Amino acid sequence: MDINSVIEQLDWHREPLGLYEPIGYTLSAGGKRLRPTLCMIGAQIFGGEEKAVLPAALALEIFHNFTLLHDDVMDKATVRRGRACVHIRWNENTAILSGDQMMIEAYKQLSQVDEKHLPHVLRLFNQMATEICEGQQYDVDFEQREDVSIADYMQMIRLKTSVLLATALRIGAYIGGANEEEQKALYEYGICIGLAFQIQDDYLDCYGDPKTFGKAIGGDIKERKKTWLWLTAQHEGGDQQELASKDYDRVINEYNRLGVPELALQQIHQLTEKGLRYLDNIPQGEATNRLRRLADQLVNRQS
Amino acid sequence: MDINSVIEQLDWHREPLGLYEPIGYTLSAGGKRLRPTLCMIGAQIFGGEEKAVLPAALALEIFHNFTLLHDDVMDKATVRRGRACVHIRWNENTAILSGDQMMIEAYKQLSQVDEKHLPHVLRLFNQMATEICEGQQYDVDFEQREDVSIADYMQMIRLKTSVLLATALRIGAYIGGANEEEQKALYEYGICIGLAFQIQDDYLDCYGDPKTFGKAIGGDIKERKKTWLWLTAQHEGGDQQELASKDYDRVINEYNRLGVPELALQQIHQLTEKGLRYLDNIPQGEATNRLRRLADQLVNRQS
Repeated sequence: MDINSVIEQLDWHREPLGLYEPIGYTLSAGGKRLRPTLCMIGAQIFGGEEKAVLPAALALEIFHNFTLLHDDVMDKATVRRGRACVHIRWNENTAILSGDQMMIEAYKQLSQVDEKHLPHVLRLFNQMATEICEGQQYDVDFEQREDVSIADYMQMIRLKTSVLLATALRIGAYIGGANEEEQKALYEYGICIGLAFQIQDDYLDCYGDPKTFGKAIGGDIKERKKTWLWLTAQHEGGDQQELASKDYDRVINEYNRLGVPELALQQIHQLTEKGLRYLDNIPQGEATNRLRRLADQLVNRQS
Repeated sequence: MDINSVIEQLDWHREPLGLYEPIGYTLSAGGKRLRPTLCMIGAQIFGGEEKAVLPAALALEIFHNFTLLHDDVMDKATVRRGRACVHIRWNENTAILSGDQMMIEAYKQLSQVDEKHLPHVLRLFNQMATEICEGQQYDVDFEQREDVSIADYMQMIRLKTSVLLATALRIGAYIGGANEEEQKALYEYGICIGLAFQIQDDYLDCYGDPKTFGKAIGGDIKERKKTWLWLTAQHEGGDQQELASKDYDRVINEYNRLGVPELALQQIHQLTEKGLRYLDNIPQGEATNRLRRLADQLVNRQS
C-alpha cells in the first residue's frame, strides 16, 4: 500500500471550506510520511494486516501535521515544505481552528481501529500526544533558560520528536500482534533513531549542503538556538563570546576548534547503533531489514 | 456527587508548569458545569452509575473549556469568568499550546470510559467536537457575509452551542443504558434547550440587567454582531441605517419598534416547550424532572 497516495486521496472538500481547505493544503504538501510508514512496518514485522493498522497510521500522520501547523504559528515560521504556512496563506485564527480540527480528525481516524485494540491504542496515542506538547513547552522554556544541559536537551527532543516515531512503531506492532517485550524493543529503537534524527537535523543546519538541505544553512546560529551542537560546545568549554555570536563563521570556527562536528557525528552513530541493537530482539525478515535500512538512510540523509 | 469539586480537585501541578498551570487556571474559574451535569443526569435517568459516567462528564467539561480558551484567542477577548484570559495572563503561544493539551486531556478522560462503551462514546464525542469547530468557523464566516439568514444562524448555534449539550445528555444516557430512541429524545431536548439558551444570551446582551448579567450590556451591538435579534430585525424589515449603527440606543429603539424582544422571548419559549416535549418519551422520575427545572432556569436566568 502506498501510504502517501492514501493520504493525498483523503477528501477535504467539505463545508465550511474555511475550516477544511487548510487541512487539505497541509496534508497534500508531502513530507517523508515517516510516521505512518513506521506504523505499517511495525505491524508487518508481526504479520499484521495493512488494513488493520491503516487508521492508526493515518491518525499519526494527521496528528504530526497538526503539531507542525500549530508550531509554525508559535514559531512565527513562514514556509513549510516549500509553501507558505497556513497562518501566512490564510491567517492565525484559521491556523488555530483548522489545527484543532486536524487533531480531532486524527482521533476520528483512531476511532476506526478495531474495537479489541482501540482502548490500548487510544491510551498509547494520548500519552504520546501529551509528551509531544510537553516537549514543545520545554523547547519554548529553553529559550529563556541559561542552565540547559545536554541531558535536558536530549529529554526535550525525546518528547518532541522521538516519542512520535517510537509510538508509531509500537502501535503498529501492538495491532500486528507483538508481545509487550517486542513492542518495547521497537519503541526503544524508535526513541534512539528519533534522537539521532534530531541531532542530524542540528548538524545539517550548520554543516549541510545548501543545495540539498532544502533551507538556508545557519538558521539555528542566527536565532541563537540551544541545539545539541551549541550545548556541546558550551560543555567543551567553548569561548562564551564566540558562542554568543549570531555570526555563522565565528560560531562554526569555534565549533570546529572544539571538535563539535566530530562529536555530533559520533553521537548520531552511537545512537543509531544502539537503536539497531534493539532490532535483534524482534522477528527477523524483510520488514525488520527495512527498519535497518531506514536507520542508515536517516543518518546519511542530506536533507 | 459534586461535579464541581471533582473538577476543582484535578491536579495540574505538573512539569512543565508553563503547559499545565494555564489548564488548572482555566478549569478552576468555575462556570455552570452544565455539560458534565447534563451527562450525569442523562445516566441517572436510566439508573446508570455515577462512577461509570464520570470520565465522559469530565471529558466534556474539559473539552468545553478548551474551546473557550482557543475561542478567546481568536476573538481577542480579554476577560473570561471575571479573570484575564489565558492569552492575556500569559501569552498567545501559551494559550494555543495549553489549549491543545486540554483537548488531549479531554481524550485522556474519555479513554477511561468502560471498554464496552468506549468505541461508541469516542465516535459520538468526535462527531460533536467536529461540529463545534464547524460552528466556530461559520461564526467567523458570518462576520464577512452579508446574506446570513435566521436559518443559517440557527444552524450555526446548533453546531457551536447545542450539539455539546445534546451530546453530553446522549453519552450519559448511552452509558446509563438508554436505547437508541431514548438517546435521541434526550439529544433533541438538548438541541432545543441549547438554541433557546443562545437566543437568551443574545437577548440578555441587549436587555439584561447590568447588575446581574455579569458583563457590559450592548457588546453585540457595539461589535455589530449578527445575533438572532439583529437578523430578526432585518427580517422584519428594519431600517438599514439604524441597524447598521453601533449606537446602543438607536439599535434598541429599532428593535423595540419592530417588536424584536417579544419575538425573541416567544422563540425562546417555543424552543423550550419543544425541548420539554421530548422528555415525555423517556422514563419519568426525579432526574427527568431536574431536566424540566433546568430548562426553566435557563430560560428565566438573568446571567
